[in-house]
Amino acid sequence: MGALVDRARDGDARSVARLISLVEDASPLLREVAAALTPHTGRAQVLGLTGPPGVGKSTTTTALVRAYRAAGKRVGVLAVDPSSPFSGGALLGDRVRMTDHAGDPGVFIRSMASRGHLGGLAWATPQALRVLDAAGCDVVLVETVGVGQSELEVASLADTTLVLLAPGMGDGIQAAKAGILEVADVFVVNKADRDGAAQTVRDLRSMLSLGGQAGDGAWRPPIVSTVASRETDNGVPDVLARIEEHSAWLAASGEGRRRRVARAASEVEAIALAGLRARLGDVHGSAALGTLAEQVVAGDTDPYRAADELVARL
Amino acid sequence: MGALVDRARDGDARSVARLISLVEDASPLLREVAAALTPHTGRAQVLGLTGPPGVGKSTTTTALVRAYRAAGKRVGVLAVDPSSPFSGGALLGDRVRMTDHAGDPGVFIRSMASRGHLGGLAWATPQALRVLDAAGCDVVLVETVGVGQSELEVASLADTTLVLLAPGMGDGIQAAKAGILEVADVFVVNKADRDGAAQTVRDLRSMLSLGGQAGDGAWRPPIVSTVASRETDNGVPDVLARIEEHSAWLAASGEGRRRRVARAASEVEAIALAGLRARLGDVHGSAALGTLAEQVVAGDTDPYRAADELVARL
Repeated sequence: MGALVDRARDGDARSVARLISLVEDASPLLREVAAALTPHTGRAQVLGLTGPPGVGKSTTTTALVRAYRAAGKRVGVLAVDPSSPFSGGALLGDRVRMTDHAGDPGVFIRSMASRGHLGGLAWATPQALRVLDAAGCDVVLVETVGVGQSELEVASLADTTLVLLAPGMGDGIQAAKAGILEVADVFVVNKADRDGAAQTVRDLRSMLSLGGQAGDGAWRPPIVSTVASRETDNGVPDVLARIEEHSAWLAASGEGRRRRVARAASEVEAIALAGLRARLGDVHGSAALGTLAEQVVAGDTDPYRAADELVARL
Repeated sequence: MGALVDRARDGDARSVARLISLVEDASPLLREVAAALTPHTGRAQVLGLTGPPGVGKSTTTTALVRAYRAAGKRVGVLAVDPSSPFSGGALLGDRVRMTDHAGDPGVFIRSMASRGHLGGLAWATPQALRVLDAAGCDVVLVETVGVGQSELEVASLADTTLVLLAPGMGDGIQAAKAGILEVADVFVVNKADRDGAAQTVRDLRSMLSLGGQAGDGAWRPPIVSTVASRETDNGVPDVLARIEEHSAWLAASGEGRRRRVARAASEVEAIALAGLRARLGDVHGSAALGTLAEQVVAGDTDPYRAADELVARL
């Protein structure tokens, strides 16, 4: 295991892929992996990137990767967005895709499966992140689709969370209502060359002002307009500058450390819960649970008393 | 509590609403509620209704409710579909909506909040279902949007699961790929008056045949075409007939009992996990978790060892 971690730290893409697979598949070697990684983690800057489908998250990811590579940084991407071309494979069962970015050995891209996992993304993503961190990535981008709980999960993972919106999307505003506003450290209005971009920025600004006055020293999420595509990077240097400002604020305010501790706490809690769940036994696996369920169906007990008995047997 | 349950059993909508609120809000009275309900549960036929956004789930729900009411049955609806007009309120925080169906005291409609709940839908829905069951509903319809894990959750709840599709939706096929095919007991191709309906039925049939030959005595999910709207019920009597056939098959094959035991097992497991989670302490609440997280960030331990310690303190 130590040798595998050493090769991953040397930038060997296969070894990095192998380690993430061990994490994703809940391998019995997990504990050994975690122990071997620990001394080499805590260095990467973690960026969350989220937003409704269709705003251009993956082209923005590509543009950001290009910008960080130009600055000489090693970059990792975890795509947990089922609508992303990066993670298309994940939806279809291909969970082992690690490509170089245009043949660049300084970029790792990994799609994460978001379905059917014990404990879900909350469980696997922080650990895959830990692998990329140990493998020497300076920046790790975690891309998720901003629907349901995922935007909150990514925010709890990231040092800095970018929320992407695009002009003329009713969905963007819906997403905003559904909680996406609160998680943004930087807003990016992408496709800023389209009709309605200025209006989207105005709408966003007025929604943010409805949130009330921020206190002294609080972070006020800036709004950056971009046109990110495979060819263009308009506005992307601004995004990087705002990320760096946020980074400096994280360090100065102590919020950075608070976020990292919260991230570790979620990770520890998710691992503990997955372990407890495995011990409770899944619906089909545990004789104790099956017997208790039979008693509930027969009306001999109620689900709460049955749950108490189940926990008592741990 | 006994008096409240008695009034709910007499069909008092306010009492039913109050009981579901106790369940949803994880009231300390939950155990008492569950114990009082238990002797009166196990009678309702539970129907799951799922499918991608835009296929007409809520109009179909309305048409089914109308048909069951015409047959003299008492009907409950749990709408956990954030795109449903029934549950629109849930998304916006109004979780206490219980309306009569056009002033009909034989119908209970309840929107469930799907966000932010300890243990999520897996936890609250079966218990709300138990309330409607005890309140004398002959049929309870659980409507969910078929995205992510929810279609699998509804299937684990329902005696019979209806999967709705509509013509000309690439999404329908996507949903099918994403696991919706496996959970269907009855397929409903709604909006069958639109172009492409026959093609959708053919596509579905060929996808089902790809699933391989069903064994003797196995259930082969039928496909019913409908035009369900506020005014029309074309095909709805066929849907009811297929549901009754499935019901007879459930009883004859023993699968019905197996599903109810599996449902009770999920419910017991979800309650047990929610209890354990509360005891582990959430990220902000537990000093033990906070201390362990600090140690992980400092590199003094790894998340697995920290999780072991956390569990050991239970």
